Amino acid sequence: MTAPLSHQDDAAPRGRPVVRLRPKAEARAIRHGFPWVYADELALDRRTSALPPGTLAVLEDDLRRPMGLVTVNVKSKIVARMLDRDPEAVIDQAWFARRIAHALTLRDRLFDAPFYRLIHAEADGLPGVVIDRFGDAAVVQPNAAWAEVHLEALVAALVAVTGVSTVLKNGSGRARGLEGLDEETVLLQGALAGPIAVPMNGATYMADLMGGQKTGLFYDQRPNHAFAARLSKGARVLDMFAHVGGFGLAALAGGAASALAVDASAAALTLAGQGAAAMGVADRFATRQGDAFDVLEALGTEAVQFDVVICDPPAFAPAKPALEAGLRAYERIARLAAPLVAPGGYLVLCSCSHAADLSAFRNASARGIGRGGRRGQILHTGFAGPDHPVLPQLAESSYLKSIFFRLD
Amino acid sequence: MTAPLSHQDDAAPRGRPVVRLRPKAEARAIRHGFPWVYADELALDRRTSALPPGTLAVLEDDLRRPMGLVTVNVKSKIVARMLDRDPEAVIDQAWFARRIAHALTLRDRLFDAPFYRLIHAEADGLPGVVIDRFGDAAVVQPNAAWAEVHLEALVAALVAVTGVSTVLKNGSGRARGLEGLDEETVLLQGALAGPIAVPMNGATYMADLMGGQKTGLFYDQRPNHAFAARLSKGARVLDMFAHVGGFGLAALAGGAASALAVDASAAALTLAGQGAAAMGVADRFATRQGDAFDVLEALGTEAVQFDVVICDPPAFAPAKPALEAGLRAYERIARLAAPLVAPGGYLVLCSCSHAADLSAFRNASARGIGRGGRRGQILHTGFAGPDHPVLPQLAESSYLKSIFFRLD
Repeated sequence: MTAPLSHQDDAAPRGRPVVRLRPKAEARAIRHGFPWVYADELALDRRTSALPPGTLAVLEDDLRRPMGLVTVNVKSKIVARMLDRDPEAVIDQAWFARRIAHALTLRDRLFDAPFYRLIHAEADGLPGVVIDRFGDAAVVQPNAAWAEVHLEALVAALVAVTGVSTVLKNGSGRARGLEGLDEETVLLQGALAGPIAVPMNGATYMADLMGGQKTGLFYDQRPNHAFAARLSKGARVLDMFAHVGGFGLAALAGGAASALAVDASAAALTLAGQGAAAMGVADRFATRQGDAFDVLEALGTEAVQFDVVICDPPAFAPAKPALEAGLRAYERIARLAAPLVAPGGYLVLCSCSHAADLSAFRNASARGIGRGGRRGQILHTGFAGPDHPVLPQLAESSYLKSIFFRLD
Repeated sequence: MTAPLSHQDDAAPRGRPVVRLRPKAEARAIRHGFPWVYADELALDRRTSALPPGTLAVLEDDLRRPMGLVTVNVKSKIVARMLDRDPEAVIDQAWFARRIAHALTLRDRLFDAPFYRLIHAEADGLPGVVIDRFGDAAVVQPNAAWAEVHLEALVAALVAVTGVSTVLKNGSGRARGLEGLDEETVLLQGALAGPIAVPMNGATYMADLMGGQKTGLFYDQRPNHAFAARLSKGARVLDMFAHVGGFGLAALAGGAASALAVDASAAALTLAGQGAAAMGVADRFATRQGDAFDVLEALGTEAVQFDVVICDPPAFAPAKPALEAGLRAYERIARLAAPLVAPGGYLVLCSCSHAADLSAFRNASARGIGRGGRRGQILHTGFAGPDHPVLPQLAESSYLKSIFFRLD
């Protein structure tokens, strides 16, 4: 791993560089809690432009009034992120420990077992930092340059507050590329002997923290898994884009008669099968490896039907330029999936695309269902679980949407 | 009660009147599932204008192609509502029974006990009709003229399909005024001996079906009650606009240390107290009658704090002309409530206003919290429960929003 820089700036907060808002910047929004400064809002003189990524600085408004402590990365579109409203805050292990402890109190209240997203970036007071917890292990995604600089203090605080013994750094996030960071994934502390068994909604998932997508498991869908499980008693369930079995294993825990998990990744399906075995439901669980569109078309030709069909694809519209094509892909998924739903059955359509808002995604889905020859009602719209909090000022961009349809 | 009209039109569907879309109407949207025809979309000749409210008619497009069976009410802004895509459908007890049975299958799957909204209007195939079930009793709200005309067949089907022994008609809905209907509430069948004990989320609510607001109980908040209960273990809870104790009793069932229920209605608070007594938690339950704004201000003066504060007011912005004033009222609620939340505690803000969409309501709430001197994160956004389905085409207007904030 890259050695963290020394913490000299923290010891002498009064000697910190100052960065200044341009007069046209949204100073009022930032004062009211908006956590970001965009590149065109900051006065970029030669000195500011030369600041290394992750530098701590005092943010001032255009009248030189201090607004708080920010981290600066002139390589990023988000040129400054608010760390603390106190411009003299010291960013050390104790500072990280306070933020992590505040976040932990919420998770302790919400969950019976220590398996959750512990830190969800801005909303948990650590901009660009994601930490997922898997019992005694934690995976840190330092997706902003400042967190890479202060990784040592962050990890020390994480271990001290939570007591985890194993810590990984996962650098696979798309956001890291935007911040100009590398993509390594490394074990920082402790040991890891194969996948970890994660209990969630009565199911058991096998999370491969070193080799998996994202951080090995998608905690964000937990409440939507639970809602799907409620619909699945005695049902034949089709779980498209199943990854390690998110919806399918939850449905089996909820009493589904059978679940078929489809994914392009053989490795993910192997983990899903191990989860089913650990739950003792392997006899009701089947997998099919392949491209989801191909498999949906093939199932349509086979004229099989399911009582519950779930499609939880990767982000088809991660950013605005991909929106049109992404919405067409969501519509196509809905069109191919709808005919596979038995009369009176359920179709669950998910999007984790930032660029496709709820309304656009819902319309694309409804259009696809109609073109698939079906009609239906919407029972429920779910977002990411409460261990994925959002700032009110950033809530418009909530990325995960799961819409539960019942088809006639 | 008004005697239902005879069903002569059903026996002779071929003799039904025809109504026709104007060329400018959204025929395509209606074909794709939009269930309404607005007044300016229908060709209103003298014959159509003379149709009695609730008349069944065949809807044709401007090229005289039949589109389905509608009910016409020229007194309403929604001049026609789609009943059946088959223009020759017969609206009799068997037709009602099929729709009710389809709706019942969903509720049977979702709920352990027969306490739920059984029919939620358009999305359950019965435009303008709401039916809430309370075990062996059901409350019918025929909020559109056609349902009043066919009430006898509707009630007969309801009794046959569900086995309920008691049926009430509740005519207190605001929608009935818009349809030109009276506001009577009457017992149509069976008997009623006082309030009914309703089990929900582990709590017990007393629902007064004859005298209560709406249909005696608000089933729509059920999942939001449950989420609040998850946050409430050991907590001091303040339930503003408590009605019969919706959030407060759920919180006590979830292990709250205490709950204070505030409402303007002494009758509602009496029922809430009876619920608490039935649950055996009367020693942890208190009530305070009064205007919510006054009580919030008084509590602010008393400088008491709570771990969980819930504000579930009536619709401050039921329709567009009230939007600005409504949003100001929501902001004021948030501003007065935020200081009552202990550090790290939770603030739940709800809106059942059609006219205030999620984004507008969230912004008003966040502004109020800021003006109350607090910051926070959003953990969860909940809507009405799945026994309140919506048509995809009408989903924009989902009225109920509950936003769960955690305050720093």
